[in-house]
Amino acid sequence: MLGQDLAHDLMGKVGFGELAFWLVAGRRPTPSETRVFEAVLVALADHGFTPTAIAARLTYLSAPESVQGALAAGLLGGGSRFLGVTEDAGRFLAGTLASSTWTDDMPDADWDTIALAAVKDARAERRLVPGLGHPVHKQEDPRTPVLYTIASEEGLYGPHLRLFAAIGRVHPQVLGRTLPLNGAGVCGAALADLGLPIDMLRGFALLARAAGILGHLAEERRDPIGMDIYHAIDRNTAYIPDEA
Amino acid sequence: MLGQDLAHDLMGKVGFGELAFWLVAGRRPTPSETRVFEAVLVALADHGFTPTAIAARLTYLSAPESVQGALAAGLLGGGSRFLGVTEDAGRFLAGTLASSTWTDDMPDADWDTIALAAVKDARAERRLVPGLGHPVHKQEDPRTPVLYTIASEEGLYGPHLRLFAAIGRVHPQVLGRTLPLNGAGVCGAALADLGLPIDMLRGFALLARAAGILGHLAEERRDPIGMDIYHAIDRNTAYIPDEA
Amino acid sequence: MLGQDLAHDLMGKVGFGELAFWLVAGRRPTPSETRVFEAVLVALADHGFTPTAIAARLTYLSAPESVQGALAAGLLGGGSRFLGVTEDAGRFLAGTLASSTWTDDMPDADWDTIALAAVKDARAERRLVPGLGHPVHKQEDPRTPVLYTIASEEGLYGPHLRLFAAIGRVHPQVLGRTLPLNGAGVCGAALADLGLPIDMLRGFALLARAAGILGHLAEERRDPIGMDIYHAIDRNTAYIPDEA
Amino acid sequence: MLGQDLAHDLMGKVGFGELAFWLVAGRRPTPSETRVFEAVLVALADHGFTPTAIAARLTYLSAPESVQGALAAGLLGGGSRFLGVTEDAGRFLAGTLASSTWTDDMPDADWDTIALAAVKDARAERRLVPGLGHPVHKQEDPRTPVLYTIASEEGLYGPHLRLFAAIGRVHPQVLGRTLPLNGAGVCGAALADLGLPIDMLRGFALLARAAGILGHLAEERRDPIGMDIYHAIDRNTAYIPDEA
Repeated sequence: MLGQDLAHDLMGKVGFGELAFWLVAGRRPTPSETRVFEAVLVALADHGFTPTAIAARLTYLSAPESVQGALAAGLLGGGSRFLGVTEDAGRFLAGTLASSTWTDDMPDADWDTIALAAVKDARAERRLVPGLGHPVHKQEDPRTPVLYTIASEEGLYGPHLRLFAAIGRVHPQVLGRTLPLNGAGVCGAALADLGLPIDMLRGFALLARAAGILGHLAEERRDPIGMDIYHAIDRNTAYIPDEA
Repeated sequence: MLGQDLAHDLMGKVGFGELAFWLVAGRRPTPSETRVFEAVLVALADHGFTPTAIAARLTYLSAPESVQGALAAGLLGGGSRFLGVTEDAGRFLAGTLASSTWTDDMPDADWDTIALAAVKDARAERRLVPGLGHPVHKQEDPRTPVLYTIASEEGLYGPHLRLFAAIGRVHPQVLGRTLPLNGAGVCGAALADLGLPIDMLRGFALLARAAGILGHLAEERRDPIGMDIYHAIDRNTAYIPDEA
Repeated sequence: MLGQDLAHDLMGKVGFGELAFWLVAGRRPTPSETRVFEAVLVALADHGFTPTAIAARLTYLSAPESVQGALAAGLLGGGSRFLGVTEDAGRFLAGTLASSTWTDDMPDADWDTIALAAVKDARAERRLVPGLGHPVHKQEDPRTPVLYTIASEEGLYGPHLRLFAAIGRVHPQVLGRTLPLNGAGVCGAALADLGLPIDMLRGFALLARAAGILGHLAEERRDPIGMDIYHAIDRNTAYIPDEA
Repeated sequence: MLGQDLAHDLMGKVGFGELAFWLVAGRRPTPSETRVFEAVLVALADHGFTPTAIAARLTYLSAPESVQGALAAGLLGGGSRFLGVTEDAGRFLAGTLASSTWTDDMPDADWDTIALAAVKDARAERRLVPGLGHPVHKQEDPRTPVLYTIASEEGLYGPHLRLFAAIGRVHPQVLGRTLPLNGAGVCGAALADLGLPIDMLRGFALLARAAGILGHLAEERRDPIGMDIYHAIDRNTAYIPDEA
């Protein structure tokens, strides 16, 4: 695996997050990269009773002999609407950088110029800017400043994070209101700054979520609520079930 | 496909249920067999807001671009607890027949003798007799007499259905109370009498359910309730979601 | 279910394909509609060792206790590349009709005008015209004329099929070569002419494929080849497996 | 999450493996526990072209727009046959311990007595002893001594690992040949010694495998082989595909 001797070179010497990075990127991350990467996975792991967590619990209720089925059902909701922001933000930022001229050390004002053009373009084409806004955190997503701090501490505050920060500064000029940079979006920026392939960013969000779903299944095992959820929904509909 | 010319021998000449039987059994069913088989699929197709239907709707809510993911999530709940009765009943009946001596035309009293021994054995080993009882239909599952009638009309009232009927007559002697023969169980008996492989009976229940889930997804598309389900559950838990 | 008494109104009286149409469309199909619909399902059910069939067989090999998992794995390949043509064609045709002026009984020449404009537009935007071409059938997909005949016989040769036929006539003028109308595309046109929701067309392809996958799993059970497939692939790669 | 402030208490301070342990077990692991746990995840992450990896790659080939579907398809093969050993071994060991009298510090000879009885019982009931034997490593699975060493170094060489080692010593007396203790089995023993719930051991194997599958998908993206696999299989079968 990875050109290494699994037993002697990897086991006990490589963390699990580090291995996941290595398997996808094809190169071993530095300790700094590992810290940022694991912070992203932690940030994305669990978000309470999301639709995907409920789907996993109900599938576990129906087929408790197949943990793999419940986990798969939970991951299948990892699509455009609830888990796509990370990759969408990474792609938006990478696309903007690809068509702009920039250097890592240019001043904020120059980043703002690029950001302003990108937000205006999106607006003109009626596209959303991914990573802006959050249904609960109306002012600030607490994950955002923490991930910026970690990336700075580790010397990994790169162009995607810089551009995303600039979007946070300039978007009110275009959109007419101030939205927070959400955590899923900043995770996408941070992963892109780690040089990970944009097409696989959703994959990391799914890996993180896999841990979260296992947590839900373990909790469902200890303290089941799936049957209550089922009955609550069933009672409130016009359907007459023919069979439980 | 099936040694036939798909376009000229099958399209427009073979029904979809007929084809499904043919693909699995490796032989074309007679019209009588097709009628019983399709009655079973219809009986198993949809049962309101089952956990699997809810899982499918929530997955569709999260990833509307992937109908295949929502359908798969719904089918993954087709395990031991909510969709296993059909196969379990077929297996129980087939196993009992394999270890008993019987003829198709023996009188009910002889079937009762076999059934009584089988129910007593199950009781002694603390195993459930699959196909007995229903959470809603406490007296009679309306599907049961209808499927018996159809099988009789078509000359397909075979040993599995006979044995299952005998179980319906004798189990109160052993269990001390009278339970209805449920529809999922009688479907298993009918499929086994059609000579279909026992190991694939759950597969037919899943095929039937696939149509039911598509019905749910179409309804979710016209008249979405997934978001309400999500919010209702989310509100009633102690979790604080970090992200929608 | 469907405002009907499942046991008395549906079982034994409604075919399985008919029921699937009814569940999705919210209305009972006529016998003519049912015949076209089932011809489509038959046309789409099985296509040999597609990637999805192989994925289902390998999953069954790995987890034979979970038929639902193998079926789900097979359906998850039902995405844009191998199973998307049906819906893509339906959407292309419906979109063209929505932005054109037409009557059911106008002459072929008028359909050709609409078709020519649509193919030119697609070409100009470098989009593929879905439903054109087939990897095996270079001259004609045998399913295509058969489905046209069935639709005509049943009085269901509507605007989507007419427009698709016109595309078959005019596209060489734009593309510079003659491609056959493939069966998956004509299925999309026929389903759209049945008034079924475009967003659910992939769902019908998946339902058809579910029957095909069950056929593969039954065959894998009788005559397993999954292990051979696995070993054949494994032998031809540079990987050293650490564990089977 | 976990009664902690996600942003301030967890991000950047907790590794991803540590978080996964915490979410499932409901308690934070010690650094020693984390090291053993991550060594297990690393040991189980990737095993070359397993059936599950092939299923994931073929699903990605068919539906490249849905990474979640490809990942789910790969996980669905995580059933009894190829990924079940970890949980099976943990359950076998835990069951034996539950019905035996033992202390952590008793001499090897006493562990051998318990192990001998357990292997004899399994043999008498014609059950396999999970964790014995490996298709490639006929003498020794290199992961086994490494994980024993790590567990010893961390003071986590507990009763499940002791009993498993004893099985390694005594089974030739009963089975008449010497089989290696495989890595998947020793992982199950190590997880059980960490106090993790036996019912969730397959879940950890799935989490590890999720990282391995993402590695396969990233490689498939860089250097695709799915189409070659498909064509190789397709060419070697009697099927005539109707459609690619």
